[in-house]
Amino acid sequence: MQRTIFLINGPNLNLLGTRKVEVYGTTTLAELVAMVEAEAALHGFALTAVQSNHEGGLVDAIHAARAGGFGIVINPGAYSHTSVAIRDAIEGVALPTIEVHLSNIYAREPFRRHSFVSEVARGVITGLGPVGYLLAVRALATLGDVR
Amino acid sequence: MQRTIFLINGPNLNLLGTRKVEVYGTTTLAELVAMVEAEAALHGFALTAVQSNHEGGLVDAIHAARAGGFGIVINPGAYSHTSVAIRDAIEGVALPTIEVHLSNIYAREPFRRHSFVSEVARGVITGLGPVGYLLAVRALATLGDVR
Amino acid sequence: MQRTIFLINGPNLNLLGTRKVEVYGTTTLAELVAMVEAEAALHGFALTAVQSNHEGGLVDAIHAARAGGFGIVINPGAYSHTSVAIRDAIEGVALPTIEVHLSNIYAREPFRRHSFVSEVARGVITGLGPVGYLLAVRALATLGDVR
Amino acid sequence: MQRTIFLINGPNLNLLGTRKVEVYGTTTLAELVAMVEAEAALHGFALTAVQSNHEGGLVDAIHAARAGGFGIVINPGAYSHTSVAIRDAIEGVALPTIEVHLSNIYAREPFRRHSFVSEVARGVITGLGPVGYLLAVRALATLGDVR
Amino acid sequence: MQRTIFLINGPNLNLLGTRKVEVYGTTTLAELVAMVEAEAALHGFALTAVQSNHEGGLVDAIHAARAGGFGIVINPGAYSHTSVAIRDAIEGVALPTIEVHLSNIYAREPFRRHSFVSEVARGVITGLGPVGYLLAVRALATLGDVR
Amino acid sequence: MQRTIFLINGPNLNLLGTRKVEVYGTTTLAELVAMVEAEAALHGFALTAVQSNHEGGLVDAIHAARAGGFGIVINPGAYSHTSVAIRDAIEGVALPTIEVHLSNIYAREPFRRHSFVSEVARGVITGLGPVGYLLAVRALATLGDVR
Amino acid sequence: MQRTIFLINGPNLNLLGTRKVEVYGTTTLAELVAMVEAEAALHGFALTAVQSNHEGGLVDAIHAARAGGFGIVINPGAYSHTSVAIRDAIEGVALPTIEVHLSNIYAREPFRRHSFVSEVARGVITGLGPVGYLLAVRALATLGDVR
Amino acid sequence: MQRTIFLINGPNLNLLGTRKVEVYGTTTLAELVAMVEAEAALHGFALTAVQSNHEGGLVDAIHAARAGGFGIVINPGAYSHTSVAIRDAIEGVALPTIEVHLSNIYAREPFRRHSFVSEVARGVITGLGPVGYLLAVRALATLGDVR
Amino acid sequence: MQRTIFLINGPNLNLLGTRKVEVYGTTTLAELVAMVEAEAALHGFALTAVQSNHEGGLVDAIHAARAGGFGIVINPGAYSHTSVAIRDAIEGVALPTIEVHLSNIYAREPFRRHSFVSEVARGVITGLGPVGYLLAVRALATLGDVR
Amino acid sequence: MQRTIFLINGPNLNLLGTRKVEVYGTTTLAELVAMVEAEAALHGFALTAVQSNHEGGLVDAIHAARAGGFGIVINPGAYSHTSVAIRDAIEGVALPTIEVHLSNIYAREPFRRHSFVSEVARGVITGLGPVGYLLAVRALATLGDVR
Amino acid sequence: MQRTIFLINGPNLNLLGTRKVEVYGTTTLAELVAMVEAEAALHGFALTAVQSNHEGGLVDAIHAARAGGFGIVINPGAYSHTSVAIRDAIEGVALPTIEVHLSNIYAREPFRRHSFVSEVARGVITGLGPVGYLLAVRALATLGDVR
Amino acid sequence: MQRTIFLINGPNLNLLGTRKVEVYGTTTLAELVAMVEAEAALHGFALTAVQSNHEGGLVDAIHAARAGGFGIVINPGAYSHTSVAIRDAIEGVALPTIEVHLSNIYAREPFRRHSFVSEVARGVITGLGPVGYLLAVRALATLGDVR
Repeated sequence: MQRTIFLINGPNLNLLGTRKVEVYGTTTLAELVAMVEAEAALHGFALTAVQSNHEGGLVDAIHAARAGGFGIVINPGAYSHTSVAIRDAIEGVALPTIEVHLSNIYAREPFRRHSFVSEVARGVITGLGPVGYLLAVRALATLGDVR
Repeated sequence: MQRTIFLINGPNLNLLGTRKVEVYGTTTLAELVAMVEAEAALHGFALTAVQSNHEGGLVDAIHAARAGGFGIVINPGAYSHTSVAIRDAIEGVALPTIEVHLSNIYAREPFRRHSFVSEVARGVITGLGPVGYLLAVRALATLGDVR
Repeated sequence: MQRTIFLINGPNLNLLGTRKVEVYGTTTLAELVAMVEAEAALHGFALTAVQSNHEGGLVDAIHAARAGGFGIVINPGAYSHTSVAIRDAIEGVALPTIEVHLSNIYAREPFRRHSFVSEVARGVITGLGPVGYLLAVRALATLGDVR
Repeated sequence: MQRTIFLINGPNLNLLGTRKVEVYGTTTLAELVAMVEAEAALHGFALTAVQSNHEGGLVDAIHAARAGGFGIVINPGAYSHTSVAIRDAIEGVALPTIEVHLSNIYAREPFRRHSFVSEVARGVITGLGPVGYLLAVRALATLGDVR
Repeated sequence: MQRTIFLINGPNLNLLGTRKVEVYGTTTLAELVAMVEAEAALHGFALTAVQSNHEGGLVDAIHAARAGGFGIVINPGAYSHTSVAIRDAIEGVALPTIEVHLSNIYAREPFRRHSFVSEVARGVITGLGPVGYLLAVRALATLGDVR
Repeated sequence: MQRTIFLINGPNLNLLGTRKVEVYGTTTLAELVAMVEAEAALHGFALTAVQSNHEGGLVDAIHAARAGGFGIVINPGAYSHTSVAIRDAIEGVALPTIEVHLSNIYAREPFRRHSFVSEVARGVITGLGPVGYLLAVRALATLGDVR
Repeated sequence: MQRTIFLINGPNLNLLGTRKVEVYGTTTLAELVAMVEAEAALHGFALTAVQSNHEGGLVDAIHAARAGGFGIVINPGAYSHTSVAIRDAIEGVALPTIEVHLSNIYAREPFRRHSFVSEVARGVITGLGPVGYLLAVRALATLGDVR
Repeated sequence: MQRTIFLINGPNLNLLGTRKVEVYGTTTLAELVAMVEAEAALHGFALTAVQSNHEGGLVDAIHAARAGGFGIVINPGAYSHTSVAIRDAIEGVALPTIEVHLSNIYAREPFRRHSFVSEVARGVITGLGPVGYLLAVRALATLGDVR
Repeated sequence: MQRTIFLINGPNLNLLGTRKVEVYGTTTLAELVAMVEAEAALHGFALTAVQSNHEGGLVDAIHAARAGGFGIVINPGAYSHTSVAIRDAIEGVALPTIEVHLSNIYAREPFRRHSFVSEVARGVITGLGPVGYLLAVRALATLGDVR
Repeated sequence: MQRTIFLINGPNLNLLGTRKVEVYGTTTLAELVAMVEAEAALHGFALTAVQSNHEGGLVDAIHAARAGGFGIVINPGAYSHTSVAIRDAIEGVALPTIEVHLSNIYAREPFRRHSFVSEVARGVITGLGPVGYLLAVRALATLGDVR
Repeated sequence: MQRTIFLINGPNLNLLGTRKVEVYGTTTLAELVAMVEAEAALHGFALTAVQSNHEGGLVDAIHAARAGGFGIVINPGAYSHTSVAIRDAIEGVALPTIEVHLSNIYAREPFRRHSFVSEVARGVITGLGPVGYLLAVRALATLGDVR
Repeated sequence: MQRTIFLINGPNLNLLGTRKVEVYGTTTLAELVAMVEAEAALHGFALTAVQSNHEGGLVDAIHAARAGGFGIVINPGAYSHTSVAIRDAIEGVALPTIEVHLSNIYAREPFRRHSFVSEVARGVITGLGPVGYLLAVRALATLGDVR
């Protein structure tokens, strides 16, 4: 049976490609998911993709990954900076998790510099646009091999 | 076709008129919506009113305003002080937005003094009870005329 | 008619007994609810139990307690530390509320030390595992007798 | 005898329409006063307008409003952020006071986000340009009717 | 031989029932001790009760509990917020300790929100008046059974 | 030639006896000056009294005390908390200065707890109403005798 | 029966006149007590004087003042800055209390600027050496007459 | 027509040469103005000199420089640290402005380290006594030549 | 001519594979460089690798990259948290720069959470061990293709 | 007559060798005192040893050292971090004082990093276990020889 | 023998004229040194110029100035904000030192507002580009004459 | 083969005995090294002494101690307060390390109170001048014997 990576995108990412394109680029969410799916396939993974504007929706999605998930690639969006619930969910399911941000959150407003999720993620990749997601998949694949 | 103003009310505002009446007054949410609708009509606007106790529900409502909305009057309630997601949603849809609070949030507990939403709102009106909503509609109407 | 206590559990508590057992123990949520129900019965109360991973879901549950609720026992989980909305909901419904935490939140990460909910709760019980819930029920029962 | 609204403008507002027009617009102070006077008349109020670059001058003007003033519309400008004296004067005369700012002070430099005056004002209107003053007059008029 | 619970009350609790009754209630310290003794007996414990206005007196009392004490119920009063010495004493004797406060310290002045003792207590019970002490005894009894 | 004490009162003290009487009492400024003058006479001092709502006016008054002043009794009012200029003026004229506040500023809002003037005053007397001024005069008289 | 003022001096004041004389002067504690007693007698008061280096000793002394005390003059010394217990004791006995400091604590190290006791004292007198104690007695005497 | 430099001195600088000479030196304000006038003449500038102890007076003086002023040399004294109004006035008139301080403000009390004016000045010169003013004139002259 | 990526490693990374292996792993610096070189070759890049324990040495190395460098992969190690000089060097040479950390710096000591370098880096990759360097090379390669 | 060193140990040090041995080691207080006495004798000093759990007890002990004490070796334990009274006592008696801590307080909880006592001690020795006390005696002996 | 001024430039200033020209201008370091040398000659000084990207290199250069140096003109660049070592070196050699910055550091990022060096410099000149260096030389020349 | 202690001195310590002698004394670095060497010999240790003004130089010296070093005595000087690199180097080589400061850093400027190095040192000795180094050697010798 194929191993599955859960791709979880947070609030406002459904608008991807259509808002603040100077920050987030013109790739849409559908295109992004397709790109990640292709990269995942390259490494022998299936992909389950979820997007929610609800903090609780993201918690639910993380819980869902417990059943059969190999790892999580998550862009918690704005909830990165405010959600202890998502942080605890990731810690609770104990799957290797890579946090991704399209923009470089450390070069923006002060309130974006801290992410509760980073404290429990295996790794964090920021500022590299959609490419960051692909690198996250490759990182998970590598984790699958060693350690 | 008539231009539409989106009236979005946040958590606990469904209890309006029935809780902490010494702070929030005795007008119910239904009465408030009717008053705002009348003021909107006066300025030639239709009104779409949403109330949600869910942060994600407010994000969804703001996104919905993108389709045909002229502007937003929002009272994010308690989420004003904690939600980057709502802030980003408003920034994302890029409609003129007036933030309203029934009470004067600057004269209450320290944690109510900061609003993430205020950073991206066109204007903020606080402390004037239901009248504040009517002024917000008039403000949007004026923005419609000039600039 | 029997008086009802509302038992409200927050995010990730659906995983109880299966995650971080060294912190939260091995009792499952279902077992916990049963224990609380028994204790409530002992004091002549019915129990209505809700669990939600959604901040808004907890607000809704608190509002629901207004109709016929005698008091609330709530473990807001991670939302304790970030939710003004839940704090305002409790203040709004004005029922005696006991906040419970399974672990001793004051002996963990700094961000867990502050709870918005504590400011409006009648009392707070932390660090005593499932027993804390039972004590909360007894506390409510006592409040029912005096004052 | 006609009721009077006191319009009090603070430091640098005498330069209105001629400095930082991208922030404050091109309306001059004289034009602004005329607009406010017209709106006041609409609601049956006379208007007394004062502008001063002196903190003490604003304190004096607020004191003067005690004799026959119905309410105050004040833009304390830079003194909003630094003056306890003006705050105390407003609290002292105990007239309903609406604080107005032309720009959205919450979206500018950090030191503009806090206003001592807001703590004692009945309401605050920011970011709406000259229109904000007109809304403030209308708000005062409404207060005159009820409560 | 019967197991003993040490009940340790801190500064100003000798005035209980006679000062700030709107906060602390009208039960006197003697009455409180009697109530706790009864609850302890119910669970098969003897009780040794100490009250001191001296920080060092509380340290001494905690040390004394080492000899034969089963657990400690402590209300460190004002020293909760300022005493590292008491914190270290509790950590040093390593008996299960329940911290109790009559009032809800999280809803009062900011300097009461932090307790050094909470960091080393097994559990904390606040805001429930004398009942909180009884719950603490029951909690200790439960700890005696399991874990 | 008789030695002179300068009595300098700051902003809003011209309203004394007519605003916030629950905090500041019902004695008017004129009555207060007369009381202080009588106490000064008792100790063989003349009195020169100034009141200004202007920070610069208080600086000017302090400078004026250089010519023939024996000492200063000053209630800088709201400027206590915000004025480095008044602080520097007192330091500059190097006359013994007693700072007085009618109310206990340490028991009010946080922003009233710090006074720039206190850093350069010989002594500070707060919370004793008009009596505090009389004590300040006596303190100056004592300083006149010894050291 | 004569009314009694309690004079309570805190830690290290037993060394008065022999340590740091450039800050605290050369008057000894015995001389100081005699001076205060004389001033008290002048106003018809008896004096009970206590000095302790123990925080709990000061709490005990304050409690003792409940029986027959008219008011308290207290110099809590170093405990001013660290003791919530003394603060609560003063609040608990509810006698008019004047806090005195020999030196001007606002012009010294930062940790001396805040006094917990000031929050509950009727008035505070600092920087005036032994004279400050005499003024405190006179202040209490005045409080005895009015209000 | 000759270009004019505005020399604006703030509070307490009228005492120059007579107060705190160990910090500010013995040059009087009149002597300083003469020195600056000579340096200005050397570079072909006329000089208009203003000194005021009033924050509003400094705002007025800055506004006055708009008419025909080439640049401003300002020592805002104590208002540097507290005045947003002066900061905004300088930003408003948009003339090149050099901020001067006689003493090295960064080596004194913490509250002197921050200057609101520095944020909008072209350059800042501190610690060089009267010479700093002459350098400021030369700097303005250079700005006049290039850029 | 082949494009070159500069690989710059900061202080203590010469000890890689031999210190704190539970945090940094057992790969040596030489092995790491070889791995990165191979990945670079895969994307058609040459690699120039530098390691220095000197902050100035890293500044020099960044400057050196200006001549012919395509991009920079840098692990500034401990200097990430303290060096404005390295931050400015990267900003100065204006080459696309990926910051890499072997461990997840956001899950360690508080002083490791902030990196001055992150503010000017194009992207940041942390917590993924040596794999993070390989991903950084791939990220640079992608940047080479688009944008 | 032999010179005397005062060895003063603070709260919980009576438990030495029996609590938290992984931090404080297994040497008991009696053994420690004997070791220090031997080292003192080696340098020609007598030793007076005091241990108290009371802050005031430590103040008293420091005062006692005034009579004939050559110097003080003090481990204020938990009071290091909270006691201004002990700090002032040491400053008051003006004997050379060496502060000792068994453990390295800078590598433990944040609240242990600051010691009020360190501000007035001649030197501080931490982290070296009982040996630290011996070094402190040697340090005092050296001070006895020179300066 | 001619007196020598040491001109010391810090990190990244070797890139002067080639990086961030909108902030730092187009003058190169060589051109700047030549300009300063000419100004120094005008006042009868020789010039020794050093630039280093190494914090230790700047410390060494400051030490070198001890031998025959008349004064120091230093632009510590990024090390201004982070280096206690350079601060101590300047304090240690005790030569009059003028700190210069090309840009106005108080109008840039928050971390640039504080300079450790300013605490020990005689004077500070910022925001005036290369001219600032020339003014610094003139300031040193003046110090040579009087003071 | 003889065991070696590494003595590492940081920036500005090459000036020892010639700068700020009121703080650091008149012993030169050479004299200090000779004294430490003698003490080391007494305990059977060889000594290798390094001094560097470069942060990286100190990192290099610490690394060098790995080969054959028994322990490190380090005075990191100004880098104590700013260097994470030196902290990590000490942690990396894992030799017992005693941090020494000639002056009592806790009684000086606030920025000297925190040392990154203290977090990883075995012990810290401050304020005892050159004697402190000798005590550090003795401390290392003792560690060599036990534990």
